[in-house]
This record gives sequence, structure tokens and C-alpha cells, in this order.
Amino acid sequence: MSLEQAIRELGDQARQASIQLASVSSDTKDKALQDLAQRLNDSREEIASANQKDLDAAELNGVSGAKLDRLRLTPQRIDALIAGLHDVVALPDPVGEVTRMWRRPNNLQVGRVRIPLGVIGIIYESRPNVTVEAAVLCVKAGNAVILRGGSEAFHSNQCLAGLLQESLQSAGLPSHAVQLVNTTDRTAVSHLLKLEEQIDVMIPRGGEALIRFVAENARMPVLKHYKGVCHVFVDAEADLDMATSICVNAKVQRPGVCNAMETMLVHKQVASDFLPQVAKALQAEGVTLKGCPQTVDILGCDLATEEDWYEEYLDLTLAVRIIDSMEEAIDHIHHYGSQHTEAIVTDNYGNAQSFLQRVLSSLVLVNASTRFNDGFELGLGAEIGISTSRLHAFGPMGLEELTTTKYIAYGQGQIRS
Amino acid sequence: MSLEQAIRELGDQARQASIQLASVSSDTKDKALQDLAQRLNDSREEIASANQKDLDAAELNGVSGAKLDRLRLTPQRIDALIAGLHDVVALPDPVGEVTRMWRRPNNLQVGRVRIPLGVIGIIYESRPNVTVEAAVLCVKAGNAVILRGGSEAFHSNQCLAGLLQESLQSAGLPSHAVQLVNTTDRTAVSHLLKLEEQIDVMIPRGGEALIRFVAENARMPVLKHYKGVCHVFVDAEADLDMATSICVNAKVQRPGVCNAMETMLVHKQVASDFLPQVAKALQAEGVTLKGCPQTVDILGCDLATEEDWYEEYLDLTLAVRIIDSMEEAIDHIHHYGSQHTEAIVTDNYGNAQSFLQRVLSSLVLVNASTRFNDGFELGLGAEIGISTSRLHAFGPMGLEELTTTKYIAYGQGQIRS
Repeated sequence: MSLEQAIRELGDQARQASIQLASVSSDTKDKALQDLAQRLNDSREEIASANQKDLDAAELNGVSGAKLDRLRLTPQRIDALIAGLHDVVALPDPVGEVTRMWRRPNNLQVGRVRIPLGVIGIIYESRPNVTVEAAVLCVKAGNAVILRGGSEAFHSNQCLAGLLQESLQSAGLPSHAVQLVNTTDRTAVSHLLKLEEQIDVMIPRGGEALIRFVAENARMPVLKHYKGVCHVFVDAEADLDMATSICVNAKVQRPGVCNAMETMLVHKQVASDFLPQVAKALQAEGVTLKGCPQTVDILGCDLATEEDWYEEYLDLTLAVRIIDSMEEAIDHIHHYGSQHTEAIVTDNYGNAQSFLQRVLSSLVLVNASTRFNDGFELGLGAEIGISTSRLHAFGPMGLEELTTTKYIAYGQGQIRS
Repeated sequence: MSLEQAIRELGDQARQASIQLASVSSDTKDKALQDLAQRLNDSREEIASANQKDLDAAELNGVSGAKLDRLRLTPQRIDALIAGLHDVVALPDPVGEVTRMWRRPNNLQVGRVRIPLGVIGIIYESRPNVTVEAAVLCVKAGNAVILRGGSEAFHSNQCLAGLLQESLQSAGLPSHAVQLVNTTDRTAVSHLLKLEEQIDVMIPRGGEALIRFVAENARMPVLKHYKGVCHVFVDAEADLDMATSICVNAKVQRPGVCNAMETMLVHKQVASDFLPQVAKALQAEGVTLKGCPQTVDILGCDLATEEDWYEEYLDLTLAVRIIDSMEEAIDHIHHYGSQHTEAIVTDNYGNAQSFLQRVLSSLVLVNASTRFNDGFELGLGAEIGISTSRLHAFGPMGLEELTTTKYIAYGQGQIRS
């Protein structure tokens, strides 16, 4: 069997499993997840030994530092996976929810009901934790999943996917509901991306190159997230202490993630008071500032170039711009932003409401840190990723975003005239 | 300027217009639509003369019959466009609806608000009516739209798009909110499909070849509809008169559309009673039957081949299969169906509920005709198409499906710890 045929077979098996899984009770799905929590705990040695093979191979290939660390399944990370499983079990099952129901003039009773998306493909890079985290959310929402992990985590992923399949079987569910692409051959991805009849949606998780490759080559819809160039706008009527606290948190609490602030926009009326105060606090945390000419005049920092306004630093660097009005701040965000997360700090009611309405990013905040753009922080109870494209899901995706709705209709013999 | 640059410029202009349009009041959008209704009425001669150019060219190219008819903008069709405009004005604006709002433990008040999708691309074939119908729904939901109509309707589309732009301007809206690709060069479509930064979603409307081309080449998400192989399952406990009425309606009321029945599944317990009755009624309407061997035994009709169960006849032909149980009917639908529309006719409560739950098509009905799978019939008030892929929208798409939601958060200085 060619690789292309093998991948198509994975797809066909996933499609079959998804049909079974779609009408399984919540209890049965939760039983499989509880079994998995137990099985992960019982299989710590097996997991560690598979993981060690990947770590050894990575070190031989010269991988080190943060990249090697991401590959490591420490006991704490297994604990976190187990705790996460119990959290997912406790979440309500979105499948079967009737989101609305109404009656037509001909007495036909029409409703919309949540059903699983069907088959979800996930293409991800080094962290083997994702194998469990992503698969578990897909299964809870009644979906079959095809996983394609990074080649550097091959043995870890195989071990974890094996445990997942055993747990599915123990609950009487089809083991093909979770399948791992069982090769490191890169052409497997291209074959996967053509299976539009078998896979309902592809979710790439990783660097921008991976995501662009998937978006350009997938024939099925893609839920994707390119980058987060997030802004905080400090308005003329901002509480400057609150603004400092929010800006420092948005920049330094975890600078390497997509919802960290990359550009700070400051109203000219407060610039000379606010900038020295916030710069002192940011510099104490090791942040390097790059500013517009007026900012440079006040702070004496480096000059930002046009490219800086587009930049996702993912690091302790911040671009700072003084602007003349909220209008100009919104224009800047529309022009340079990535529609991810933007916050305004203001005590002015009208500006708060206007900013909330007119900024079209996936999360718009008043007087809070951009770091809240996260499925857990917003209260979704789970997160499979953040979408910066607008179709289907915009922003953090929880269990509900792993479902769609179908229409149902209860009739008494109605025909169309 | 190359064609590629020109198309990119359309995209950039649409993106700009979409930002303005997203925060415009419902009243302003409705004012533009009301102006268009008046303008269509006042421009009947101009429209007829542009349409005549297309009709003359089509006849020179040997186009005739139904295809020529679809191109024709008769006074009745202009009347229908005007009436449809008034209906759209009367619909509620989906933009700005807060679909949910909740409070987090840290007192952050989080909500989800409907916003427009942004820029919508529509690629369609001969009917010039679509230029107005589709653009109007996009604008009502706050979106900018780029239209690419069929080359055979070029002059008609130009005339209608011109009127649309005049109406937008008369209401103070950006005329780039509705743009027509102003060339019949086919490579323009390929350029459009690459504009993932400018166009949020592509909606192809037309034959399967067009839709497949768009799905395979678009880098942005596509809302698409391949085909409707719709089933009616006549259960053992069906009211056979109701079943006859529903099956005849589903097959003959308008056989050339996607929600017409293509395969009738009949429970073996009622086959010998029901089939002669329904065959008589169907044959009286000119329907040709193709059956499984058991059906042939009863009716003496032609034998159906394996291919017939996949077939979307779009014509007065019907495949008929006798099956042993509801299980088998559901398996048949999952195997051969297109996830479009399926109905069960039954008086058995458990079977009705089970069929509704387990069949995963965009509309599942009990005791009603498949012909109800339509945005107007289901009560959406409008329809821009029917999606048979599950992401974002599954089934008829109305105004709500032309929007997405963003998250908003009202804080009092919250930071993340």
C-alpha cells in the first residue's frame, strides 16, 4: 500500500469512527477520558522510556535549550495532563444542545442542534503533550481526530496515542476515533491536506511557516492563527497607575506568547507624564523600548522603524507610539495589527464603548491586560487554539468551537407548495 | 497595472470599506438598501438595455433554452429584486448582538458580540440577479463584497453593480463596499483566490466544477455546497398516505434543485403496500423509477446500479431501495448521502427521535418534505446559499451566517497572575 493510500485509509477509518462517536452518550465519552487519566498514571515508566528515545535522538541532532525542554514529558507534565483530563470530564458536553427552536407558520417546528464537526486533523510541532490535550477535547466534543505530530516527538506520540486508543476501546468506543500518522515522512502531510472528503477541518499548531504551508495546501477549511501583534492604547483619561500595571503585565508576564503586548499606543496628552513612569517599570523588568520620534524625545530610547509596528517580538522588546487621538489609535490598530487582542485603558465612558465597538479584533478589552485572551482565562474551560481568521471561530476555541449545528424539523405531513 | 495588481487593489479597497462598514448603524445600511430599491425601479430601461447586450451576445454564441432564460432580467425579475430588498430591510441587523455575557471570578465581564465577517468574495455563474441578491445580504450584515459574475452576464452585472455603488454613496457609505471584478479574463479568479489577507471567505455559487476549482485553489476559507443526494425513509410504521404525499412533493415539486429527493428508502414491512401506491402517484407526474432487485420484483421498474445510489439526478428520476430496518436506512444515508437533507416518515416516536439524532445531515426532518431545506422556508428570512461543509455554517445560510463573533471584556484594572 502506498503512503497516499495509507493516509486515505486513515481518513476513511476516521470518518467511520466519527459517525459512531457522534451519537454516543456523554457518559461513555467521559468514561473513556477517566480511563485515560488512570492509564496515564499507570504508564509513567512506559511514557518516560518512549520520551527518552526522542530526547536521545534530539540531543544527537544537536537540539538543546528551550526546544529540547518542550520535548520533555516530565512527571509534572504528566500530572498536568491527568489534572487537565479531569477538568475536561467535568465540562458540559456541547453535543445535543438545542441552541434555538421555533415554529413556522405551517406549524413545522424547526430547531438547531449542536453536532460534532466530524473529523478533525491536527498538525503540530514538538510538544508531545498536545497529542493528549488536543485529542481529548476532540473526543469530548464527539469528533474523530487524526494527529500528525513533529518527527522529533515520534516515539512519545506513538506511546500516548496507543494509550488513547486503549482507553477508547475500554469504553466501547471505536479506536479509530484517535489515530496518529505513523510515519515521519513529510509527504504524509501533503496527502492529509487533500482529504477534503474525509477531514472536516484542519488545525495547524506551530510556527508561521507550518501554518502558511497548511493554509496554502489544504483543500478542507483550516482554523489558524498566524500571529499576535497586540496593542494597549493608553487614553488621555487613563488612570496612569492602572495603565502602568496593565502595560507591564501585558508585556512581561509571559513575553513569548501571542497575547503579549507588542505595541503600546499613548495619547499625546498623557505622554510626558505616563511614558517616564511606565518606562521605568518596564525597564526594571528588562524591557527594551523602541519609539516614534516623539517618544524618543521624551525617553531617549531607540527609534522604531516602520517594520517595528508590524513586529511580533515575542520577547522583551516593545514598540511605543504617541498618537493624537483615539481615532488615530484605532487606525493604527487596523493598519498594523493582526486582529488578535487590543486593550484600551481609559476612564472615559464614551471612548471605552467606542473602542469596544470599532476595534475588530478577536478580543477587545477595557481596563484589563491583553494576556486574558485565552480559553481558560475567558471561562471556556478549555482551549484547542486561538483563531485569528473569522470564519467559524474568532479568538480562543473551546469545546463549542469543535461543534457545528444542524437543523432539525418536526412535521405532521407538511409539504411545500 | 497588471491584472494581479488590479485584483489586489480591489481587495485592499474592500478591506478598507469593510472596516468602515462594520461600525455603521443599521439605519444607514437600510437607507442604502431602500435607495437601491428606488434606483432599480427608476433604472429599468438602463438595466434592460445592458441585459439585451448580454442576451444578444449569448444568442450569437448559440446559447438557448434554460441557459438563455437564466440570463434574462425580465420586468418580473426586477420586481422580485425590489420586493426582496424591502424584505431584507425589514430583517433585524445581526451585527452588535451580544450572544452571551458572563462574569469571571476576577470580576472581568466577558461577552461575545456579533461582528461582520469582513470581506466576502462571491464567484457565480449566469444569473445576474445574484449580483443584487448576494451583495444586499452582505451589506446588510456589514460586510464588503467582491463579486465575480459569469462572463455571459458581464454588461448586466456592470449595470447592477453601478447602481449598488450609487446607492451606497447616497447613504454616505464607501462605494468600495460592493465591487465587481471588471474583466472577463478567467485568470482574475485565480488572483482573487490568493487574497487571503484581504478576503475573509469565498462563496462559490454554481456548478460542481466551479465549486471544486474554488475549493482546491482558494487560500481563504470557502463556504460551499457540492450536491444534494436527499433521502426520504418510509418507516414500517409510516402513515402511507402521508408518505406518498411527502415523497411526491419531495421529488416532483421542483426536481432540478438540491433539496429534491433523489433516493427513496422503504421499510420491507410496508414495501408491498406502499410501493404500488407511491409508484402510481409518481408515475402520474412523469417520474421514472429505478429500484433494487426487490423493488423491481414488486414494480417491474428498471434495475438501479451501484452508481444510482450516489446520483443527484436533478430530474424526474428516482432511485428506490427496500431496506430491512431503520439501522440499514441510516447506514445507507451515511454511506451514499451528501449530508444535505433527509426525512423519515413514521408514527413511531422512538424511531423519529433516533433518526433526528443519528442522521448528521444539514437538515433532518420527521414527517415533512425535504423541499423545506431553504433559508426562507426554515424562517431565516434570507438565504445566501446552503453549506454542506460543516465549518461555520451547515445548511442554509442567512444573515447570521454572514457574521462572526468577537469577545469583549469590561475590566477594572485586571492583570494576569
